[in-house]
Amino acid sequence: MSSRQVEGWVIDHASRGAWSPDCLRWETRELAALRDGELLLRPIYLSLDPSNIVWMQLDQTYIVPLQAGDVMIGMVLGEVEESRADGFQPGEMVLALADWTTRAIVSADPSQRVPPAKVQRVPGMPLAVALTVFSHIGLAAMIGMREVARVRPGETVLVSSAAGAVGGLAAQIAKATGCRVVGIAGGPEKCALLLEELGLDDAIDYRGDVLDAALGRTCPHGIDVYFDNVGGSTLDTVLMHLKEGARIAVCGQISQYFADDAHPAHGVRNLYQLVVRSVRMEGYVPPSFEHRFPDIFTELARLLAEGAITHRAHVVDGLESVPAALGLLQTGGNRGKLLARLAPDPWVTAPELVRSAAP
Amino acid sequence: MSSRQVEGWVIDHASRGAWSPDCLRWETRELAALRDGELLLRPIYLSLDPSNIVWMQLDQTYIVPLQAGDVMIGMVLGEVEESRADGFQPGEMVLALADWTTRAIVSADPSQRVPPAKVQRVPGMPLAVALTVFSHIGLAAMIGMREVARVRPGETVLVSSAAGAVGGLAAQIAKATGCRVVGIAGGPEKCALLLEELGLDDAIDYRGDVLDAALGRTCPHGIDVYFDNVGGSTLDTVLMHLKEGARIAVCGQISQYFADDAHPAHGVRNLYQLVVRSVRMEGYVPPSFEHRFPDIFTELARLLAEGAITHRAHVVDGLESVPAALGLLQTGGNRGKLLARLAPDPWVTAPELVRSAAP
Repeated sequence: MSSRQVEGWVIDHASRGAWSPDCLRWETRELAALRDGELLLRPIYLSLDPSNIVWMQLDQTYIVPLQAGDVMIGMVLGEVEESRADGFQPGEMVLALADWTTRAIVSADPSQRVPPAKVQRVPGMPLAVALTVFSHIGLAAMIGMREVARVRPGETVLVSSAAGAVGGLAAQIAKATGCRVVGIAGGPEKCALLLEELGLDDAIDYRGDVLDAALGRTCPHGIDVYFDNVGGSTLDTVLMHLKEGARIAVCGQISQYFADDAHPAHGVRNLYQLVVRSVRMEGYVPPSFEHRFPDIFTELARLLAEGAITHRAHVVDGLESVPAALGLLQTGGNRGKLLARLAPDPWVTAPELVRSAAP
Repeated sequence: MSSRQVEGWVIDHASRGAWSPDCLRWETRELAALRDGELLLRPIYLSLDPSNIVWMQLDQTYIVPLQAGDVMIGMVLGEVEESRADGFQPGEMVLALADWTTRAIVSADPSQRVPPAKVQRVPGMPLAVALTVFSHIGLAAMIGMREVARVRPGETVLVSSAAGAVGGLAAQIAKATGCRVVGIAGGPEKCALLLEELGLDDAIDYRGDVLDAALGRTCPHGIDVYFDNVGGSTLDTVLMHLKEGARIAVCGQISQYFADDAHPAHGVRNLYQLVVRSVRMEGYVPPSFEHRFPDIFTELARLLAEGAITHRAHVVDGLESVPAALGLLQTGGNRGKLLARLAPDPWVTAPELVRSAAP
């Protein structure tokens, strides 16, 4: 085994408050020798997510504990370049938690195969769909809406960050279930997207509208299900518009993640509504629902093939783009799932199906 | 039907912030004629509850909407004095939502009978037990712990307001389920009660202890179930001590009920822990679980007969004592379920089993 070098992103110091790209520093390191059961990956896409920033706060025990000086990690879609694991061949595609480096070593696990065993490749879709619909994004949307909120036909559903990756899918899944769906997003352009591209029934611009009045207008009979991506003051206002027996699926609380002494998190004061309206508010992470993944992927493939849900990706090119691109997650500047592309998408022929945009 | 007068408490104006007895005024009114299906009650006990004060805020749609000038209502345990309802005879005991007056008319409903159909009278207990264990108190404790939190043997359970009526029963029910139970109460006297009278494993004095440190000491491996009576800053701290898959049964949020502009409610900032720990937080009111009442009453009778749960009442005498006594609910001055006794307890012979105390 010859000595090889990899380059990539190392955590320089803990992230505090607003995201600052200097939390990551570029380093060159020796690649370890490949051991039995391991794969060497050539990354094609990195999935860039709010949870990456939360992990870099280094004071959470959120799935993976990280320290300053560690190589940063995230979900990586890559091609197997070398395999010392039974049943894995070079050229196969794998999705795994892996280093943000030019090459990465991971422990092989059959569940990492892309596409997953039960999913058919949907004609015309790029491999990037493995990081949108057939990923933790699709899982988070489907689990939150169907398994946690247990949404039913005819209900009124509100989704925050509805123009975002998870929120957009969650809203479309609620539409496909036969619900009236209202989305919250920032700015008229995103609200137009909710109505025209995602097919929602109404849209609220949290920058231009007064949320309390907008909820009274768009959900006059109250809300059955709130798919919560943001927490904070939005949640506080939504709590006053819930129906008896409402459910809140807590997918994320992004308004709270970037708090610091200068910008303290909004404290939620209306939780007594949980008692008044017999409301269930439930947080979740997809791994807890692993026993349901096969059925969920099958359902996602069906909805995608029918056009009920859409693949939307915001792609930046190159590993070097990652620190600046993460800032888009905080400003809401991304249009669809934020991805960094390190190599050409092997499923894409002409025409280019992946929307490419600079951060 | 001769004209008769009743005296009692009318809502003078909406309650705001700290409870003020002048929200109620004494009035004499004509008693309406008894109609078919109605009962005339001679009240023996009034149940005095935090929800009474919430109702008098007049801006809630919490079970019953009330206005200034309305006669105040609450749960009343009374003897049927006259009946125009099939199957009800004078001398029977009834528990119903009724006026806070010297006599009260209610619509008859077989579910109001005391003791409830499936409950055996437990030897040595006063009729007041119908307002503690066999009431919305016992229902709230049992439903919160068993139906909402679904507590399991061996779990670590935390109860706030554990020296209170609902909290005390909830904590004892968790003990009877085989849990390690820690209670939060105000002051060394109440903490001693938790350990000595209720048999809990540990007690936290929210006045003398720093809650965060006390939770680290008493629940070093984290909390599986939090029975929440108070909300606010206590909830915020507890959120940082939950185990993966924890459940919060939201029975009440008393810290939020007395907020006003000068004393704003504490805003809860740590709700992102619902996601981090996959936590379910669920509010409830007993009426939603009516189909379970027979089984729940049977279980409560069994636990009471075994001595696993205890009847604890704090009794003030006379309808005129009610406005001042309600203040005890805010200061935590009551020892057990707060009741106003308007007539002698018909089940009590010597010795006197009901603890009597002036507010």
